[in-house]
Amino acid sequence: MIFGAAYYPEQWNPKDWEEDILIMKSMGLSQVRLAEFSWALMEPKEGKFDFSFFAKVMDLLHKHDMGVILGTPTATFPPWLYKKYPSIVQTSKNGIVRTIGTRRQACFSSLEFKKSTERIVTKMSQALGAHPSLRGWQIDNEIGHEGSDVSYSNSALVGFRKWLKTKYKTISNLNENWGASFWGLVYNDWNEIPLPASHVASGFNPAMIQDYYRYNSDLIIEYVSFQTKIIRKNSPNIPITTNLYPSPFLPVTEMSRVFSELDYVSWDNYPVWGPQLEPFPHPMVAMTLQYVRGLKNHPYTVMEQFSGQQGHDTLGYLPPPGQIGLWLVQAIAHGANQIFFFRYRTALFGQEQLCYGILDHGKQLTHKYFELQKTITELQEVADDFVDEPYPAEVALVTDIDNVRNYKHQPLTDGLRFEPTAFASVGYDIEIATWFAGANILNVNTHLIPSDLVDLQKYKIIILPLYTMIDARFVERLEEYVRNGGCLVLGYRAGIKEKNHWMRPERTPGVFQEMAGVTVEKFEAIGKESYKIKFRFFRGKCNKFCELLQPTTAKAIAWYNDSKKFYKGTPAATVNNYHAGKVYYIGTSLAPESMVLLFRRIFRENQIPFSFLGEKTERIRRVGKLWNYEITLNNSSKYKLLGFSFLKPFAYRIQKIPK
Amino acid sequence: MIFGAAYYPEQWNPKDWEEDILIMKSMGLSQVRLAEFSWALMEPKEGKFDFSFFAKVMDLLHKHDMGVILGTPTATFPPWLYKKYPSIVQTSKNGIVRTIGTRRQACFSSLEFKKSTERIVTKMSQALGAHPSLRGWQIDNEIGHEGSDVSYSNSALVGFRKWLKTKYKTISNLNENWGASFWGLVYNDWNEIPLPASHVASGFNPAMIQDYYRYNSDLIIEYVSFQTKIIRKNSPNIPITTNLYPSPFLPVTEMSRVFSELDYVSWDNYPVWGPQLEPFPHPMVAMTLQYVRGLKNHPYTVMEQFSGQQGHDTLGYLPPPGQIGLWLVQAIAHGANQIFFFRYRTALFGQEQLCYGILDHGKQLTHKYFELQKTITELQEVADDFVDEPYPAEVALVTDIDNVRNYKHQPLTDGLRFEPTAFASVGYDIEIATWFAGANILNVNTHLIPSDLVDLQKYKIIILPLYTMIDARFVERLEEYVRNGGCLVLGYRAGIKEKNHWMRPERTPGVFQEMAGVTVEKFEAIGKESYKIKFRFFRGKCNKFCELLQPTTAKAIAWYNDSKKFYKGTPAATVNNYHAGKVYYIGTSLAPESMVLLFRRIFRENQIPFSFLGEKTERIRRVGKLWNYEITLNNSSKYKLLGFSFLKPFAYRIQKIPK
Amino acid sequence: MIFGAAYYPEQWNPKDWEEDILIMKSMGLSQVRLAEFSWALMEPKEGKFDFSFFAKVMDLLHKHDMGVILGTPTATFPPWLYKKYPSIVQTSKNGIVRTIGTRRQACFSSLEFKKSTERIVTKMSQALGAHPSLRGWQIDNEIGHEGSDVSYSNSALVGFRKWLKTKYKTISNLNENWGASFWGLVYNDWNEIPLPASHVASGFNPAMIQDYYRYNSDLIIEYVSFQTKIIRKNSPNIPITTNLYPSPFLPVTEMSRVFSELDYVSWDNYPVWGPQLEPFPHPMVAMTLQYVRGLKNHPYTVMEQFSGQQGHDTLGYLPPPGQIGLWLVQAIAHGANQIFFFRYRTALFGQEQLCYGILDHGKQLTHKYFELQKTITELQEVADDFVDEPYPAEVALVTDIDNVRNYKHQPLTDGLRFEPTAFASVGYDIEIATWFAGANILNVNTHLIPSDLVDLQKYKIIILPLYTMIDARFVERLEEYVRNGGCLVLGYRAGIKEKNHWMRPERTPGVFQEMAGVTVEKFEAIGKESYKIKFRFFRGKCNKFCELLQPTTAKAIAWYNDSKKFYKGTPAATVNNYHAGKVYYIGTSLAPESMVLLFRRIFRENQIPFSFLGEKTERIRRVGKLWNYEITLNNSSKYKLLGFSFLKPFAYRIQKIPK
Repeated sequence: MIFGAAYYPEQWNPKDWEEDILIMKSMGLSQVRLAEFSWALMEPKEGKFDFSFFAKVMDLLHKHDMGVILGTPTATFPPWLYKKYPSIVQTSKNGIVRTIGTRRQACFSSLEFKKSTERIVTKMSQALGAHPSLRGWQIDNEIGHEGSDVSYSNSALVGFRKWLKTKYKTISNLNENWGASFWGLVYNDWNEIPLPASHVASGFNPAMIQDYYRYNSDLIIEYVSFQTKIIRKNSPNIPITTNLYPSPFLPVTEMSRVFSELDYVSWDNYPVWGPQLEPFPHPMVAMTLQYVRGLKNHPYTVMEQFSGQQGHDTLGYLPPPGQIGLWLVQAIAHGANQIFFFRYRTALFGQEQLCYGILDHGKQLTHKYFELQKTITELQEVADDFVDEPYPAEVALVTDIDNVRNYKHQPLTDGLRFEPTAFASVGYDIEIATWFAGANILNVNTHLIPSDLVDLQKYKIIILPLYTMIDARFVERLEEYVRNGGCLVLGYRAGIKEKNHWMRPERTPGVFQEMAGVTVEKFEAIGKESYKIKFRFFRGKCNKFCELLQPTTAKAIAWYNDSKKFYKGTPAATVNNYHAGKVYYIGTSLAPESMVLLFRRIFRENQIPFSFLGEKTERIRRVGKLWNYEITLNNSSKYKLLGFSFLKPFAYRIQKIPK
Repeated sequence: MIFGAAYYPEQWNPKDWEEDILIMKSMGLSQVRLAEFSWALMEPKEGKFDFSFFAKVMDLLHKHDMGVILGTPTATFPPWLYKKYPSIVQTSKNGIVRTIGTRRQACFSSLEFKKSTERIVTKMSQALGAHPSLRGWQIDNEIGHEGSDVSYSNSALVGFRKWLKTKYKTISNLNENWGASFWGLVYNDWNEIPLPASHVASGFNPAMIQDYYRYNSDLIIEYVSFQTKIIRKNSPNIPITTNLYPSPFLPVTEMSRVFSELDYVSWDNYPVWGPQLEPFPHPMVAMTLQYVRGLKNHPYTVMEQFSGQQGHDTLGYLPPPGQIGLWLVQAIAHGANQIFFFRYRTALFGQEQLCYGILDHGKQLTHKYFELQKTITELQEVADDFVDEPYPAEVALVTDIDNVRNYKHQPLTDGLRFEPTAFASVGYDIEIATWFAGANILNVNTHLIPSDLVDLQKYKIIILPLYTMIDARFVERLEEYVRNGGCLVLGYRAGIKEKNHWMRPERTPGVFQEMAGVTVEKFEAIGKESYKIKFRFFRGKCNKFCELLQPTTAKAIAWYNDSKKFYKGTPAATVNNYHAGKVYYIGTSLAPESMVLLFRRIFRENQIPFSFLGEKTERIRRVGKLWNYEITLNNSSKYKLLGFSFLKPFAYRIQKIPK
Repeated sequence: MIFGAAYYPEQWNPKDWEEDILIMKSMGLSQVRLAEFSWALMEPKEGKFDFSFFAKVMDLLHKHDMGVILGTPTATFPPWLYKKYPSIVQTSKNGIVRTIGTRRQACFSSLEFKKSTERIVTKMSQALGAHPSLRGWQIDNEIGHEGSDVSYSNSALVGFRKWLKTKYKTISNLNENWGASFWGLVYNDWNEIPLPASHVASGFNPAMIQDYYRYNSDLIIEYVSFQTKIIRKNSPNIPITTNLYPSPFLPVTEMSRVFSELDYVSWDNYPVWGPQLEPFPHPMVAMTLQYVRGLKNHPYTVMEQFSGQQGHDTLGYLPPPGQIGLWLVQAIAHGANQIFFFRYRTALFGQEQLCYGILDHGKQLTHKYFELQKTITELQEVADDFVDEPYPAEVALVTDIDNVRNYKHQPLTDGLRFEPTAFASVGYDIEIATWFAGANILNVNTHLIPSDLVDLQKYKIIILPLYTMIDARFVERLEEYVRNGGCLVLGYRAGIKEKNHWMRPERTPGVFQEMAGVTVEKFEAIGKESYKIKFRFFRGKCNKFCELLQPTTAKAIAWYNDSKKFYKGTPAATVNNYHAGKVYYIGTSLAPESMVLLFRRIFRENQIPFSFLGEKTERIRRVGKLWNYEITLNNSSKYKLLGFSFLKPFAYRIQKIPK
């Protein structure tokens, strides 16, 4: 188990470096992350490279037995590059052309940016790639973040047309697939195709938007692969990653493909950020950790772990004593084997002078230092036994990038439309977190896996919400899985759309009609409202979307129950036996507490052991080399009675169980 | 009585066409609307025309005795046209230049667009204008919708300056009329005049904005007239219309002039659309139906009648059983003699794949099909007797386009500022609907008529709210009307502004002071607040604006009654005898329930029979050739006791009464 | 004591002028303000000047013994000027290029604008500067208003780079001071520096934004100085001012420097404007009046005093009888010696046809006329004795322009982020008003003074909230002040940031740690939430930001007391004896009522007499030449018992007290 921190020697007086290293070591850290915003330092003028600064820092770190993760510095670029190539920047959907002075400006479709990237990454990996302190490479930083996953620049338009030509071969094939006869938008020529950017009223063809998202995803995948190849050549045997940013489904990028050539997944874990007054609920964080884990189905690294209040121009929540340590334990329990805190000491200047680190603006040791030091010490004892072992699970929640994209531009109901900033559309994230919460609160270890990576046979239960746009081969695999005894849980609006964005002519749930034993003729989108629902013995709430289920071979397990609605008494969820297996069909979005009721039934019916320790207590099971572990986290400000003893507020307990 | 549906053969496999036609016929439909978005299909390349597709479809329809309404396809244009003339598009107020890929892009000030229109409409009307199936033409589609009623493009600026020169002759005359000395904006030259488009803080001269709205209105009037002349020539004796979109006063266009050369009025009737969780209240829909009827004071066509949930990327309300049929009955009761449903079958692709039709994405018959089929059958029996007869009314609510425009850019109170999207300003609509609701809920047949079309002598009561900007000749006519025994109901802020946007020097109600017998020195704009008011025996609520009335010869009939306000006890509404007639003056905006109280009094005092059957029950009286009719609609989810029998939820009853 | 009104003869028929003058005189007015938007009238074509219009008006006014304030007309410019120099306009932060047709368009960085200004101001001051009626000059109008205090035009970028070069000399010095190594934004060249304008996500370096605000402030200071020099030359011995707009800290301009060359301060006093449903609370207005007074520590002029409802396209609150007069009394009580009402008669046309004046659109005398006439008569009797005398105060609240700017772009907590329009950021204003309210409600005369003007020795108590960015010399002066017995009240987040925007390495309160005897390791930003706090005997509420105080030598006087918070019981405010003086440290923002509790304690402990007459009653003490005065204002709609008699709603009492 490795602990480290982000360290920015360029922001501090060289006279401080040695003391900084000693402070980090005293806390239990053995690695630092360096250089990911330092292009201007390494190439101060075009073609003039200077890596001596970081070489010197790495020498000093090496002297103190500290390892280094090097970040390639392409998340910003030097002002001289922009002056020379003003067209290398992105354009936002509403037409704002990015500029320097901030970050994440470069357009992945820009050839000049690619060439400049090639040069700096080549030189950097040649200069520092064999340094004895080097433990890993991080490509770029939070690639795609802050809306940079989709650019509407002119070079992107040019690239998009080329990409479309490669995909569709002929313009009539494109017209056919997009349904371009709709509103009479039949193209004669690739160069007639516009960008699906800002507009005044009615929007663009959804098939076009879907393709535009795929094109932008491909740009990022290709860009990371491009850097990877350069580094592999110049710095062989050093593991490579890139660090993701929350939340998982915010970008349109297919992250599992981004990581296909990389060695491990890393991401930045901020359970609270900026002016938030409360952290995200713990199942939301757990879902994200599982998402990260699932991208390679492998232990991951937290490249930035919360160590102090963070924000660019406003701040918020102060974690009570214990909670920073608790978040650290949660990240490890869910599958991390390396943790880098963000950041060692708080910047005195710049856009992140309010992003507090382990230390504040001075060098005084802080409560955060002591809390993390204590937690590291406690963990170090047990973590090495399990962190590199597989995370055990009999249940998997399966996600799908094409459906992520679909629900971004066609949210179906205002309940799935949630856009906290101009570039964020996170309805899918929240819906997935809600489904995940049902299993998480019942303390059932649950994988989150993309549909193209999941090995269905490994699981007793497959949970598949928001699977509207289908992949025919995956549907076949699902059918086979259920036929052979698997349990599939489908959500509303399943199975009714083709990859080219055409609706299928069958009624919902489309290709799953027979497996689910149910059909839907009527539905209502209920926006942000909440209505009553009932299970056999319990009452609950449903949200967002209500399908009026007509069971054919299935039997109902939940019913709408709101007297405001004429469909009170109509089935809302069903279960169907299909050959040796079972299909649950949930025709609505359940409130988290109702998700718990649903999963309680499903787990019981499918012999999955579960428990309920309160809505703020989480228990994770891990299998170590020597022991099994039960890790229990009290995510509340109250004492929690567990067996015969209490868990203090924001405390955790790691229980060793003989194998 | 004719029933039909929008049909898009270009979106379906030709093998389906015959079956489609049979399904439509089996439901009771005898006409379809075709082609209104098909420019690219008919002119795939510049100058290369091909009408064989629609000719073939029309042949097939004719074979099955189905009639056709043809739409001219100018609501979108083909990509090649934009590529050739990129300047033909509109610019929105905040500077977004429209692009292809959506709809309604063309700028009516563009000469290239006009030339292209001339060509396609000429060729189309020549090619298809004599087809035996042809029953009507629809010009364009929802012209002016989605903010396209006002464009801020460069060609619009050029056109505006020319229009101003025609209107004002000399620049000093313009300066004088606009009051250009204000803020020192005196123009020396027509070319110095800017567009009243986006700005940072303080806005543009209101007289200038008013003229800009008039100019844009004239562009649309001229454009429709231009197409009409072409069609008349090539397709003589075929009736022509254009279809309006809701809501009535959203555009700045003078719709009564748009229709002056057309044969009948049509519009698109969606009592609920998109993510709305509830439909519009029935008096709002009724008001709109009467607006449409009043534009020619003649039976109208519903060119798009709601037949399924509609939305571009989100959906909402599911109409309970009966309600879709009820909306159909309401449209006919208020004056429709042709109904086209939108749409036959739901598109599998494109921006409207969530706009559900009579059929869903497949060909299975739906509950909507059966409900509409049943309603059509029931109506067919009685409708033919009355639908072509005049809609009887002794009361008219008079609207005025210049006041519509005035309240858009100068809403006076936040209570009249309601802009649900960047291009929608519908405060006037809602206020008019509220006044209309008073009469509607009391089941008094009421016309809605533009001020320039109304024949005052035909009515016992004229209701005239928001009549701030006056036309001197109309004021004379009103005076004569009241002098001779008419009853006039005025709203707050009446009579105080000239057509050139100058305020008049008299106190409110300006030119109506003597007729109303009241004067106003003080007023308060109360925004979205609501305050108490009282009538002699009842209590109510007032909104938006409160004038403190000082009766001169009038007597008070309502008083402010809120102890939060120092003017508690001050008159809020008065009635005045003026020669043989009466003038009511309402110095505030009443809540709908209070509007009912007011109109109850006015109707009683003026011998207008009224009834109250509950706030969700509507009764309309029609006069047929053979019978009289009382049509009663239960717009609620509850059973409604009527006489000795019950009306089911969302059911209707048509009672024949001997003449 | 002088009373006058804004008068726009260019908006009225010359035949009305004489009657207008007589009406104004009959009300008690002896001066008018003229011409501040009349450039187009005085220079109708480039180089063609004509001042005869205003000369004639001034002759007529002189004939009637009326004095004149002349406004230079640079707040708008004629259309021909824009046609000739389209680049003279400002660009807003989000990229909207200003245009003519509104006002405040010109960019202060434009050389063409400066040249044009020189010409018109020279000619105007030559033509009219010796007129016998002339009593004063007003430069421009509300300079910097409506977002025009910061422009993002290209000429501003050019000027900014030059300004930076003058300030920093070398680019490496700039990089060092800005901390440009952050996010790798190291500049090689002045021309690489961008504008901190619109951006997509993460923002610009805060040191850069701070400098950009300072640069824009310098532009306005220089522009006013430039006009001043011209007028001084051509119109010697005539006092010069410029009129400020509310609210005080909305602009980034250093107003004390704007006035350093001017003769007196003036501003525009609107306790309610536009669609506001309630006026600002009286302490907010009082704070602003004291801000204006404090800019020169001298009697000031109200250049626009509310006389009728005001708004551009919507209106709101109707002041009850008495309140317009009361606002007039309050303005004089707080230090005005000249009052000009806005405006004489309401414009019939133009953008301000809803800005009601003393008269409405006609010439009928109004309730406003009579109320103001009565108040003027009552005041005339006593005001001359005290209005030119100093406003006595033992307490000063000190503000600081660099902290105003800092909190605009780095509000720290959502509680300090308040941006009612795109160009308004008024969190600092509201926080200062809240602190001022504590003293104001206790009826303690309190100065508001900028940090660079305050003479500390004159006060028993110095209140210094939001003093985060420090000036080292001012900190020395504060230390000396306390050392010698002064009482200093500091707010949260004091003393921790350098002028170059670098955070200091010490813990909060940074440079004040020893003086305050307290240190802060933990804090929470609580946004718009409100939590419980307690004093020894009272309970209260705190907002926005909570520091967990660790007293070293201080003792606690208030504690957090909210059971939702783990830091319940932790000190929230302290007092420390430091040499002969005392330092209070308030680690949170208190609700107004709790501010009163705090100041009650502070005043008692420091022998400042105070009283509490109810939260809506204000009492001001003035010292006249012959008498002392106690001016009591009833800002409520209720009767107020004072001693043995009642003050009517919105009435005032001026009590003469023998010296």
